[in-house]
Amino acid sequence: MSSLVTVKENHLIQKYFNSLKNESSAISLGIGDDSAEIKSKDTFLTSVDTSLSGTHFPKDLDPFYIAYRSLIIASSDIYAMGGIPHSFLLSITHPDPNDDWFKKFSSGTQEFINDYKVSIAGGDLTLGPLSISVTFFGNPLPRVLKRSSARLNESIYITGKLGAGYQGLIKYRDYETDNQFLRPDVPKDLVKPLNPYINACIDISDGLVIDLERICNASEVGAQIQYDKAFITEGIEDLIRGDDYQLCFTANSKHHEEIKKISQDIYCIGKINNTNKVSVFDGDQEVNFKTKGWDSFSLKNS
Amino acid sequence: MSSLVTVKENHLIQKYFNSLKNESSAISLGIGDDSAEIKSKDTFLTSVDTSLSGTHFPKDLDPFYIAYRSLIIASSDIYAMGGIPHSFLLSITHPDPNDDWFKKFSSGTQEFINDYKVSIAGGDLTLGPLSISVTFFGNPLPRVLKRSSARLNESIYITGKLGAGYQGLIKYRDYETDNQFLRPDVPKDLVKPLNPYINACIDISDGLVIDLERICNASEVGAQIQYDKAFITEGIEDLIRGDDYQLCFTANSKHHEEIKKISQDIYCIGKINNTNKVSVFDGDQEVNFKTKGWDSFSLKNS
Repeated sequence: MSSLVTVKENHLIQKYFNSLKNESSAISLGIGDDSAEIKSKDTFLTSVDTSLSGTHFPKDLDPFYIAYRSLIIASSDIYAMGGIPHSFLLSITHPDPNDDWFKKFSSGTQEFINDYKVSIAGGDLTLGPLSISVTFFGNPLPRVLKRSSARLNESIYITGKLGAGYQGLIKYRDYETDNQFLRPDVPKDLVKPLNPYINACIDISDGLVIDLERICNASEVGAQIQYDKAFITEGIEDLIRGDDYQLCFTANSKHHEEIKKISQDIYCIGKINNTNKVSVFDGDQEVNFKTKGWDSFSLKNS
Repeated sequence: MSSLVTVKENHLIQKYFNSLKNESSAISLGIGDDSAEIKSKDTFLTSVDTSLSGTHFPKDLDPFYIAYRSLIIASSDIYAMGGIPHSFLLSITHPDPNDDWFKKFSSGTQEFINDYKVSIAGGDLTLGPLSISVTFFGNPLPRVLKRSSARLNESIYITGKLGAGYQGLIKYRDYETDNQFLRPDVPKDLVKPLNPYINACIDISDGLVIDLERICNASEVGAQIQYDKAFITEGIEDLIRGDDYQLCFTANSKHHEEIKKISQDIYCIGKINNTNKVSVFDGDQEVNFKTKGWDSFSLKNS
């Protein structure tokens, strides 16, 4: 990659990223040239996600977790399409690149590479306000999962409890680092067994209600969610909190038993209908939320 | 793509990017889902490049040219590897997304798509200091061109005159928009005919001397450049100015005539040697530059 930074700074990215140990065999040609060369099937899935300091992560977050969290969040878009992530490009904007920061950041990158069996294909460094832009690549499973494939009367599922990301943020503020804000619980092992049954799918990044609404809009359907304490962490507000990175998907109800067998973490939360809106019921009472999604900018001054 | 911005802002990116008319057939599934799906050969080339307001382009630059210039610069890394760019992902960070800005930006994006026969695969929007991160994808030509392939006694070539980017910046400051700072002259039509002859290759983004030094370091060789007014725009300083996006490549001297026949814009500027450094001669006098590359941050306050 070319980047208009000084030789010293280019040296940092070469030094710390060249020494990472890759875990997938996807890379034909990695760091050190103008482009990476990546092995592919007939098609590949790709997505870009930018995490900004003070918006998507706290300004004083340990660079280890800046790396780990940014990479998980970016990989989530590949899982949500019915894909298996295998490699990524990193574009880092940093106000003052230095050994200490890069050492910690590359250590978090290495841990993510190990945990998710992926490879780094290349990196880019620019001087400026701290932000991490990750482009992920993945192999599609047999069914590529679009938002527009939800059909009337299908069941709606989530792959894990909602609100864990928000609880993780509270834990983080209490100086507890073992939490799902820093290490979101992406359902990486469920994607393959679930693939034959899923129709529409999205990752819950901005909040269940708003993300399910995106499925409904793309599919020209509506949805009704039946609230149950079984699938939330704290309270009904967890339905409009984001940062969970669980998948929300629809499937024909005839597959219900097969889906439930795959994992006890999967919850059936409602049904697709023809109302063209997402409504939430607590018992037989409709719930009205003030907002549909989590205000990501609440982190701005933290 | 998921991005923690409001519905209104997500709507902007959908509105302006969905209406773009793609020119390559590379995209199986484009904007509107969590990932894009892109058609591929056995391998694909990919590279990411971030352009920051006030660093890589002036803060008051028309969004049309922010798009056009950012996209050209990013595509240049694919050409430099011996590839033909076919599609890209855009990650935009913007402090105040609005219709006026997106209309102009998408218009510049469309003109680039038309000029370079490529397609947009997806986009992402984050609130923050203005920057454009472009991930480009391309098909490799038969020879993938690494920096490490330069060999002793090979000839060194450039695909066009140096200094045009810098001259373009001066023109831009004189309110002349037809210039090679806003529309760098990437040698897109030369990449295919030159491919059989090129060994090592790099795009001249940071300056000829520093970029050639990258080839020399990767190949464990040295280089001597024989300065000639024929291949510069203004003066010898053009050898250490960046932003030209011409290619610098090495080839076996036996191909000299075939290479010169491909374009009269191609100049032979020197030879690979075993000195492990890049030296520049003006006649028989060695030239010493204060810096090896252009100081990109001279734009910082413009």
